[in-house]
Amino acid sequence: MTYPLKADRGMLVVKSIYFFDEGDGTNKRLLGGKGAGLCTMTQLGLPVPPGFVITTEVCKRYYEAGGKLPDGLMKEVEAAMRKLEKFTGKRFGDPKNPLLVSIRSGSMLSMPGMMDTILNLGLNDETVGGLVKLTNNERFAYDAYRRFIQMFGKIVLGIDAKKFDEVFEEQKRKSEAKVDTDLKAEDMEEVVNKFKKVVREETGREFPSDPREQLRLAIAAVFASWNNKRAREYREFYKIPHDLGTAVSVVTMIFGNMGADSGTGVAFTRDPATGERKLYGEYLFNAQGEDVVAGIRTPLKITDLKEKYPKLYKQLLDIDEKLERHYRDMQDVEFTVERGKLFMLQTRAGKRTAQAAVKIAVDMVEEGLITKEEALLRVEPTQVEQLLHKQVDQKAKVKVIGKGLNASPGAAIGKVVFDSERAKELGNKGEKVILVRPETSPDDVGGIIASQGVLTSRGGATSHAAVVTRGLGKPAVVGCEAIKIDLENRVFEANGIKVKEEDIITINGSTGEVILGAAPLIEPKMTKELLKLLSWSDGIKKLQNWANADYPSDAKRARELGAQGIGLCRTEHMFFEEERLPLVHQMILRQTREERKRPLEKLLKIQRSDFKEILRIMDGLPVVIRLLDPPLHEFLPRYEALLEKVLMGRIGGSKPDELKAAEELLKRVEAMRESNPMMGLRGCRLGITHPDVIEMQVQAIFEAACELKREGRNPRPEIMIPLVGHANELKVVREQLERVAQEVMEKYGVKVQYKFGTMIEVPRAALTADEIAEYAEFFSFGTNDLTQMTYAFSRDDAEGKFLFQYIEQGILDADPFQTLDRKGVGKLMQIGVELGRGKRPDLEIGICGEHGGDPKSIEFCHELGLDYVSCSPFRLPVARIAAAHAALRAKAERERYL
Amino acid sequence: MTYPLKADRGMLVVKSIYFFDEGDGTNKRLLGGKGAGLCTMTQLGLPVPPGFVITTEVCKRYYEAGGKLPDGLMKEVEAAMRKLEKFTGKRFGDPKNPLLVSIRSGSMLSMPGMMDTILNLGLNDETVGGLVKLTNNERFAYDAYRRFIQMFGKIVLGIDAKKFDEVFEEQKRKSEAKVDTDLKAEDMEEVVNKFKKVVREETGREFPSDPREQLRLAIAAVFASWNNKRAREYREFYKIPHDLGTAVSVVTMIFGNMGADSGTGVAFTRDPATGERKLYGEYLFNAQGEDVVAGIRTPLKITDLKEKYPKLYKQLLDIDEKLERHYRDMQDVEFTVERGKLFMLQTRAGKRTAQAAVKIAVDMVEEGLITKEEALLRVEPTQVEQLLHKQVDQKAKVKVIGKGLNASPGAAIGKVVFDSERAKELGNKGEKVILVRPETSPDDVGGIIASQGVLTSRGGATSHAAVVTRGLGKPAVVGCEAIKIDLENRVFEANGIKVKEEDIITINGSTGEVILGAAPLIEPKMTKELLKLLSWSDGIKKLQNWANADYPSDAKRARELGAQGIGLCRTEHMFFEEERLPLVHQMILRQTREERKRPLEKLLKIQRSDFKEILRIMDGLPVVIRLLDPPLHEFLPRYEALLEKVLMGRIGGSKPDELKAAEELLKRVEAMRESNPMMGLRGCRLGITHPDVIEMQVQAIFEAACELKREGRNPRPEIMIPLVGHANELKVVREQLERVAQEVMEKYGVKVQYKFGTMIEVPRAALTADEIAEYAEFFSFGTNDLTQMTYAFSRDDAEGKFLFQYIEQGILDADPFQTLDRKGVGKLMQIGVELGRGKRPDLEIGICGEHGGDPKSIEFCHELGLDYVSCSPFRLPVARIAAAHAALRAKAERERYL
Repeated sequence: MTYPLKADRGMLVVKSIYFFDEGDGTNKRLLGGKGAGLCTMTQLGLPVPPGFVITTEVCKRYYEAGGKLPDGLMKEVEAAMRKLEKFTGKRFGDPKNPLLVSIRSGSMLSMPGMMDTILNLGLNDETVGGLVKLTNNERFAYDAYRRFIQMFGKIVLGIDAKKFDEVFEEQKRKSEAKVDTDLKAEDMEEVVNKFKKVVREETGREFPSDPREQLRLAIAAVFASWNNKRAREYREFYKIPHDLGTAVSVVTMIFGNMGADSGTGVAFTRDPATGERKLYGEYLFNAQGEDVVAGIRTPLKITDLKEKYPKLYKQLLDIDEKLERHYRDMQDVEFTVERGKLFMLQTRAGKRTAQAAVKIAVDMVEEGLITKEEALLRVEPTQVEQLLHKQVDQKAKVKVIGKGLNASPGAAIGKVVFDSERAKELGNKGEKVILVRPETSPDDVGGIIASQGVLTSRGGATSHAAVVTRGLGKPAVVGCEAIKIDLENRVFEANGIKVKEEDIITINGSTGEVILGAAPLIEPKMTKELLKLLSWSDGIKKLQNWANADYPSDAKRARELGAQGIGLCRTEHMFFEEERLPLVHQMILRQTREERKRPLEKLLKIQRSDFKEILRIMDGLPVVIRLLDPPLHEFLPRYEALLEKVLMGRIGGSKPDELKAAEELLKRVEAMRESNPMMGLRGCRLGITHPDVIEMQVQAIFEAACELKREGRNPRPEIMIPLVGHANELKVVREQLERVAQEVMEKYGVKVQYKFGTMIEVPRAALTADEIAEYAEFFSFGTNDLTQMTYAFSRDDAEGKFLFQYIEQGILDADPFQTLDRKGVGKLMQIGVELGRGKRPDLEIGICGEHGGDPKSIEFCHELGLDYVSCSPFRLPVARIAAAHAALRAKAERERYL
Repeated sequence: MTYPLKADRGMLVVKSIYFFDEGDGTNKRLLGGKGAGLCTMTQLGLPVPPGFVITTEVCKRYYEAGGKLPDGLMKEVEAAMRKLEKFTGKRFGDPKNPLLVSIRSGSMLSMPGMMDTILNLGLNDETVGGLVKLTNNERFAYDAYRRFIQMFGKIVLGIDAKKFDEVFEEQKRKSEAKVDTDLKAEDMEEVVNKFKKVVREETGREFPSDPREQLRLAIAAVFASWNNKRAREYREFYKIPHDLGTAVSVVTMIFGNMGADSGTGVAFTRDPATGERKLYGEYLFNAQGEDVVAGIRTPLKITDLKEKYPKLYKQLLDIDEKLERHYRDMQDVEFTVERGKLFMLQTRAGKRTAQAAVKIAVDMVEEGLITKEEALLRVEPTQVEQLLHKQVDQKAKVKVIGKGLNASPGAAIGKVVFDSERAKELGNKGEKVILVRPETSPDDVGGIIASQGVLTSRGGATSHAAVVTRGLGKPAVVGCEAIKIDLENRVFEANGIKVKEEDIITINGSTGEVILGAAPLIEPKMTKELLKLLSWSDGIKKLQNWANADYPSDAKRARELGAQGIGLCRTEHMFFEEERLPLVHQMILRQTREERKRPLEKLLKIQRSDFKEILRIMDGLPVVIRLLDPPLHEFLPRYEALLEKVLMGRIGGSKPDELKAAEELLKRVEAMRESNPMMGLRGCRLGITHPDVIEMQVQAIFEAACELKREGRNPRPEIMIPLVGHANELKVVREQLERVAQEVMEKYGVKVQYKFGTMIEVPRAALTADEIAEYAEFFSFGTNDLTQMTYAFSRDDAEGKFLFQYIEQGILDADPFQTLDRKGVGKLMQIGVELGRGKRPDLEIGICGEHGGDPKSIEFCHELGLDYVSCSPFRLPVARIAAAHAALRAKAERERYL
């Protein structure tokens, strides 16, 4: 992605500072998300406190200079402040009518809570007096002053927040105040003095009283916060470039804590959990904005404003309507009411659950706000994935031990952990954990990522935990006051039940329930909006979506979920079923073709009925059936178990007959053992050494197809020969199987529409695809094995032993078994497609590895021009959306070059 | 290779028939080797019986017509016969002065004994009378007649040879004849009549008496013999195209069996075993040519002619001199003396042992006959390989049980087998066998190929067994009359010792000795001619030849054999030595870096002295040292053995302490087990999970180098990081090791000339070689692993389980672990070279798999433009010659396009 860097509307010169009425609201790269929103709202005529933005370019210059504000910047800032003084009629540092400002960070891409904001800047021992007079509220003024010193001390001067907290708590004890509001003006004044002492002691200098000095330091501190650890980690997780930089907005202070006719709130223009079209959010009386977001006091539902403050509610509705029409998307706004007057402080596209994303996108199409294409692009494939998360079975009897806010939907089961370090520790070992905290802070992001879900006892629907989990698509229950957390003893109590660390709980983010133990889960249901969206994707995507299905039940599900074919029907799974295994053992252990005849005949019957059912379900659609692939010893008892049995038997544990049989079997298994079975006697190699087995399979497939054909159906089997590395392998096996196919069709007197083809899963197959295409009517990239061979990664070994370390150390960007490695494996695929189509232009090409359900990999397959991607049935909705995205992105890309 | 098809000298029209005085002797493709030789000799003025050649084009037309002589051919043949009658003054079918001819096959490339020849054609009941009168020898005439019927019956009419043999033996019994020569004229006449009866009974028709009919059938039979099973097998083994076809030479009969002043012989212009410049061959009095080649009667040495027939000997010497000057190569000629007059019947480049090939090539350069380049091209790398075969240690005490002719040099040890079927059966299982036969025939070629060597009790230096084994480079002892073979009971007796089938013997093809049991073998010595040839190769080849050497002794040998560097020094072999293994176990089993410190320090000292010695030996030349590569569990006891120990221990077999230790070890080994270790935790992955181990290795290397540097030497270590698949792996490991290197060099205060680089052995490495080249100063293709990954062939598993079947069935042309697979693995290499050099033009690129010693693979490496090939020291001479060949061939190829 590249973001065009526009100067501002119609201008080519990039200034360092833009006032809200002049900045280009579409240029988030330059102005940051927050600054751009303030400009847009100002220009839309909405009530916004006056202010200006210092651009991200200045931030870049700050870093280029090694962390120093650019020369001359402060002169420009001071000029801007003079302009702001004119706007507001107040003066910065004026003891009588002081201009106070907030300093807000804001980068192009939203990083909620990751960077710092400083409120009430401009206060000092003189100006606080002016504030007292202006507001006629001494307590308010000193509260604002102590908040400013606290924030400034922590953020700008780097003093440990605890130092201030201790002083404040001490003051509360001393004044016998239960809550903050019990503190009086003189208490606050005392706190201010004590805070200044803290600053003196911690920094060896006086608290800076000059507002200009405060401003300079605050701007520099916001720029510096771009590179704090939390922010860097967040960007790394979300793959946000580190060089975007943050803008700084300087905004005239509005106070939500000026009494009962003041307040502050956040609102979504639609319900971010369900997508329903209604105002959704929270409002806190007599509070500053940070109080809502931090989730410390439990706020009022915004809908409650309708009755209590109908005028304010109406005004909010109008503003939201205007913003949605402008942005054509659901907005998340922050606002403050100062003595009855509403000011908008922020607007941005609202984070939403997957369910909401789908509903909003579909609704907006129907409201005429956006096109179907836009709607599709509004829903990330990963969000669709979340919708397919399992849910708690509502019919199951479960032990509900508490109920909180259903902040992020889906069900999660895991061991309770009480801090993020522990969550990361266990989570990275592959254990499933639920992070349980009183509330979460930006420092917890790593722990949240490592957890299955989050449970908090405090905070609302817009608290940190709620916002972050929704973004990550992880279930969360927040503000569950029923649970009492004892961090010290690593236990929580809920309705008399004690839950210790590592006990298992289930959280239901869709209902807010907290359940003891592991609740039974069920498959999710598709909403009508999702079905609509999926149907739109079909008209747009170029790739077909096929599914991997080994059993009739899978095939049925796949067809219901829109599969346009079966891309992989693995026949070996059919062999593992209990009643079949003895036959399979006979087939393997008997040495001559003659001896194997009986068990093969029995297996033939079974396989025929398996195939018939699948082909019947997929009537009219292609079904790619892969012939036996794994090494035969996989069907036999494990060598180690047999060895143990024999050794124990020899010492007298079993009858001579049994011992002899076990010894015999051990010998056979030993002879079949391989040092690297993945690269041993399997796939088409079996077809060459044990031709009768795959002949049986092909006979079964064609008999099934012929029977269906006679019933008037249209079966379309495609026979896939695995592990081909040399064209001659395919040639030999195909000739042998083609003969069987012809014999069966002659016997039945019908013609079936069929293909023969191969997996491309060995590097050599891709490299010699032209030769292989001579004998193949289709290719199916087996990207699991192809990745293993291309990287020389045995997945079984690598994932436990070093792959995680590779990803953690940044050696690999991603797990190549989840997201196709474009540069290596992808290059082989490209070679394979070019050579294959060069030889046989109508070659059908697809992919049937797990990557067929991964959005990034699907995008790559679209670029390669494959015919289809095949994935597990349950991932079909993800894959269908991803295929549509790929087509839309490619179209946009093409248009950009036209 | 393509052979230009010239019509004949200066003419563009291709005729069907060329007389010996008109055919272009350089056009073997058209005239066959035999026909071309006859033309050349005729045109050189040598005594050749008159005759003509029917071209290979006619043979092709024969096959195009589905095995029918082309229309009109016989008219041309008859015209040619009339011309021949004029030449000879005899007439075909004339009862008084009959013209008799031989019909000989001959294709472009020599296939000795593979196709058929018919002598004495033109005889029938009338012409035999003419022959009697002309020769005044009734017995001779009838003998010739019965031979003709016998050959014609077998070859043209397809009658089982036994039918004739039975009749002949019956006649001998009846006439109380011990040997053939005891039979009188009337006996022969009787045989003729009985043979004609055999023909009548077997074919239902009379023996064709019309000479024209005989000629027509014989020509067709020779064409047909091109495609008999023996000939096809031979061509497949030697990769001779099946579409060359055979020519047919029709030559006036000369009789070597006309009495004591007649005879027949074969001669080489130099000794085909040693290369010595002297006439070498055999002569049989009163015999036809086939008698010599078949090896049935033991002939006279040709040097004995010098005394007995000085005039004949002188004439032969003159002819040979002329032929060598003309052909500029050693010739193998056949001749016949009829009543004192010498006729040349064939000349061709003589097959020779490897030793002879080298000596002849070098001698001819010194005689001014050929250039050094030509000399090099005269010696195939595979011949040099033979020269490096081990020899029987002359100082060892061995039990010699017989001595025969030293027909093909080198020593072979194996189990005795008495027929070719058994040789193939055991040989294909990988067992080493010696084929022991009274004599061999063309039907035995398959058995000879499957054997280590051949021992016969009959036949001379030009017998079938001798010729074929020399061609194959397999040791042979022939004509060892001391051994009495009892085929029935599958045993032979020699000097009172009985040797049964599957007993082990050694044959020494260099001395002719047959030794009971397995004799101790020693390394071969290099001849001065070979050293000279190798030194010439150095001036011509573009590829450097490096060697793989893990120990100082290997390095010493490599340097002696002309290594220009060490391409692969594997450090893990050093770990396996007995006194080091306990340290290695500690290094592996101790869990923390701290615990591993002690054993690593001890290993450091050991490794330093290993490396110092190798670097000292290779002073001034690069030494590529590969860091630890195999999975660590390879150094530990085998899991199965431990499991057994533990299980037995639990039942009471061992002390509690020992059991506990074993259980502990089992647990650790179990945790380290991998399902596909080849693709698991090994190579650079170890360097990332166990950095201290490879840091120790690099420290040892640099300490060794710094010490040598201080001694005034010039060590050139190149550190090779194995199994890299992603550039970041190399980046991380290299940074860590580069730091160690710098520290050591600072400590010693010297600078060493060194490089860091990587193996390219994972497909992804080749595909992303541009990214990898950013961190690598050299690439070394590890083609063993690269072949495994590219094919998904685990060599350990494949070679036992299916690879042989693949080669046998023709799915693969060759074992890709022996000869580089150009299309698959080679394509990856090409991508790797292009991308790597594109990023870093001075990238040093070599190959260190076994392919580095394989001539075809070396040719490919030359084409790819690699800097060097590295192989086992003992293969260096082969590799050096192969590198020179590659350069010469490429030069010829370029010149062809200029």
